[in-house]
Amino acid sequence: MNALNIAEYTHTLGLQAKAASALMARTPAAIKNKALRALARLLRDSGPALAAANALDLERARAAGLPEPMVDRLKLSPQALETCAQGCEQLAAMPDIIGELQGMQQQPSGIRVGRMRVPIGVFCMIYESRPNVTIEAASLSIKSGNAAILRGGSEAIDSNRALALLVAQALAEAGLPEHAVQLVQTTDRAAVGQLIALPAYVDVIIPRGGKGLIERISVEAKVPVIKHLDGNCHTYVDDPCDIAMAVKIADNAKTHKYSPCNATESLLVARGVAQAFLPQIGAVYAAKGVQMRACPQALAILRAVPGADLAEATEADWGEEYLAPIISVKVVAGLEEAIAHINRWGSHHTDAIVTRDHLHAQQFLRDVDSASCMVNASTRFADGFEYGLGAEIGISTDKFHARGPVGIEGLTSLKWVVLGEGDVRG
Amino acid sequence: MNALNIAEYTHTLGLQAKAASALMARTPAAIKNKALRALARLLRDSGPALAAANALDLERARAAGLPEPMVDRLKLSPQALETCAQGCEQLAAMPDIIGELQGMQQQPSGIRVGRMRVPIGVFCMIYESRPNVTIEAASLSIKSGNAAILRGGSEAIDSNRALALLVAQALAEAGLPEHAVQLVQTTDRAAVGQLIALPAYVDVIIPRGGKGLIERISVEAKVPVIKHLDGNCHTYVDDPCDIAMAVKIADNAKTHKYSPCNATESLLVARGVAQAFLPQIGAVYAAKGVQMRACPQALAILRAVPGADLAEATEADWGEEYLAPIISVKVVAGLEEAIAHINRWGSHHTDAIVTRDHLHAQQFLRDVDSASCMVNASTRFADGFEYGLGAEIGISTDKFHARGPVGIEGLTSLKWVVLGEGDVRG
Repeated sequence: MNALNIAEYTHTLGLQAKAASALMARTPAAIKNKALRALARLLRDSGPALAAANALDLERARAAGLPEPMVDRLKLSPQALETCAQGCEQLAAMPDIIGELQGMQQQPSGIRVGRMRVPIGVFCMIYESRPNVTIEAASLSIKSGNAAILRGGSEAIDSNRALALLVAQALAEAGLPEHAVQLVQTTDRAAVGQLIALPAYVDVIIPRGGKGLIERISVEAKVPVIKHLDGNCHTYVDDPCDIAMAVKIADNAKTHKYSPCNATESLLVARGVAQAFLPQIGAVYAAKGVQMRACPQALAILRAVPGADLAEATEADWGEEYLAPIISVKVVAGLEEAIAHINRWGSHHTDAIVTRDHLHAQQFLRDVDSASCMVNASTRFADGFEYGLGAEIGISTDKFHARGPVGIEGLTSLKWVVLGEGDVRG
Repeated sequence: MNALNIAEYTHTLGLQAKAASALMARTPAAIKNKALRALARLLRDSGPALAAANALDLERARAAGLPEPMVDRLKLSPQALETCAQGCEQLAAMPDIIGELQGMQQQPSGIRVGRMRVPIGVFCMIYESRPNVTIEAASLSIKSGNAAILRGGSEAIDSNRALALLVAQALAEAGLPEHAVQLVQTTDRAAVGQLIALPAYVDVIIPRGGKGLIERISVEAKVPVIKHLDGNCHTYVDDPCDIAMAVKIADNAKTHKYSPCNATESLLVARGVAQAFLPQIGAVYAAKGVQMRACPQALAILRAVPGADLAEATEADWGEEYLAPIISVKVVAGLEEAIAHINRWGSHHTDAIVTRDHLHAQQFLRDVDSASCMVNASTRFADGFEYGLGAEIGISTDKFHARGPVGIEGLTSLKWVVLGEGDVRG
């Protein structure tokens, strides 16, 4: 496609999505759930076809010399498909929040005023690699009564096309509009630039991928974006605390998985417990091969840990999202310094305190300016499923609209409803 | 100030606001309410000083040959000041929503997860003319625990400076940070361009003023904007309806006041009631000097009304916000056409149906894609005070975050709170 054709194509996608969104918004819960259950069935029945399509992507990726972890992210294993199918069934089983009326109260004038939950309209998801995002986004779109435009990565185009065919089939089975979920068929990058500049048709952009992609979209988008750029999460070990609990949490928060955005990247330790705590966590990290980039005070203590991989932290370390077996470690005077450090260097994603002091816990929850604030729990819990949202379309570090894990509610809006009996303003 | 100085100045304002916002976010309700009551007292005690400052603005406006309605909007009458003082007292009397914990539920993992209402941080309000907006914005900012940067119009600079002095005094009396509410002291337009591009310091821009101002800010802002551009509101008179009620509502919605954004600009009438309804409302509008720009079908009926000021509507009329004694009138086949017309031509602000049919009422509420949807009530009710919000910082036609009248809740955000007892993810 040339530039003109792409502009026309994305405009058509937008127009069709907008029209479909009006129909989706008035679709009863039973029909939406029927489509979701049909999609689950089709995913289970289409193993061979999906494997064949996926093989094309995998072959192309290997031929292009993509590193094996990247190839891995493209894989649509039978287990991954079963997880997708179960996700659709779980969404079908969840209550429908569309149309819910909130807080209907009579005002002094006599009118009754409340708010109704309605779909946002059209969302456009721009993502990379993992083709199962196609099913996650499609199923959330159906359940929330929105229309979706899905733009996956070029590396997964064959898998995404095969999955989108199943989505179309499920929509048709339930009698839903064919344009309720549209996959962008071109892999031309210019299409992204067009899609993020269609305020007449697209209500929100949800990018998921590398920081470069998200930054570019945030700068250029002409419509609201739900995004998170960094997950520079902290675990603060307070004085007083249960040292064994602190070791358990700091271990899990860092080493349970290294690549997720909710992994802890920086460990803050109150001076009063540093002598008791640091040698223990240092031994755990040393055993798991986690490098510790520490402030001089922490270094002085950690040097006694056999086999510890140590380095002196530079200022850049406090702002770093490693996504790797590396952690920055800093001894702080206490709670106030910890909060100030987190608000200064963190990415407002997820931060935790380990403490026995009730007032400290309350202050941490109030004053840390992050989407998720935790007491005595691992930052790894910051996740739509762990929070009981049933599904997650992404995590937001914006303060507007959706903050933290974003599920169905984040894809909705509240409009005001006024009921009168001929009331006029006097 | 030159461009460099303005950039430095706005940067300083932002830095100071951000620092103050952290303190405001942890301020107890009693202190915030003390500041609000002090501000009410100061407003009442400072009549002569405020009148003198206001006189400078009025003199300058008249010397510049501003039309009298514009001069009028600058006026700080004793009644206007008393209304401001009462507004502060009402805010002080309202419950404080900051810190509220919502929906704390235990998850299968054992952690308890809920959400805490917190201030957004720093908002920047950009407005024109009416100096009482300075007090409305300052008082909402104090109550909601935010810091505010206020940029009023150059035509009201003397009044705004005098009011900002009282705000500073009230903050000081309550022991609140002096930079919690800052008035931009320069009237240079370049300052606006700077303020809307400070994402590190400003969390949201709230423009209030003419469409040109709001469009420019929306296009150029690098932070989220809460705005409404147009109020092209509709009243749809359905078949069946109580004709007397429809006349009463259509009269009030158009003629109660012509300039507010929630005045009805377009009247849609179901074909089945047009013969009964149009002559009656036509006579009301004729008596009040309201011009009717009507479709051919409506014109044919309205021509029989003595003294009616009639014109044939062009397509442009359906999209017009007159803010004047003019209304467009269209006969439609019924509910579906009315909804389609409103969603196509309206501005998603406020739209009302007058009906006796319960199913029609439900469908109108569900399918009209506007911030406020009303049944049997005047569109003029779309207002923060009428909705029971206690105060209003503006009205939003965005779907994101705040939609419709925006009060204290619109100046807050929800962050996730996780409480554990040493829980780690398995």
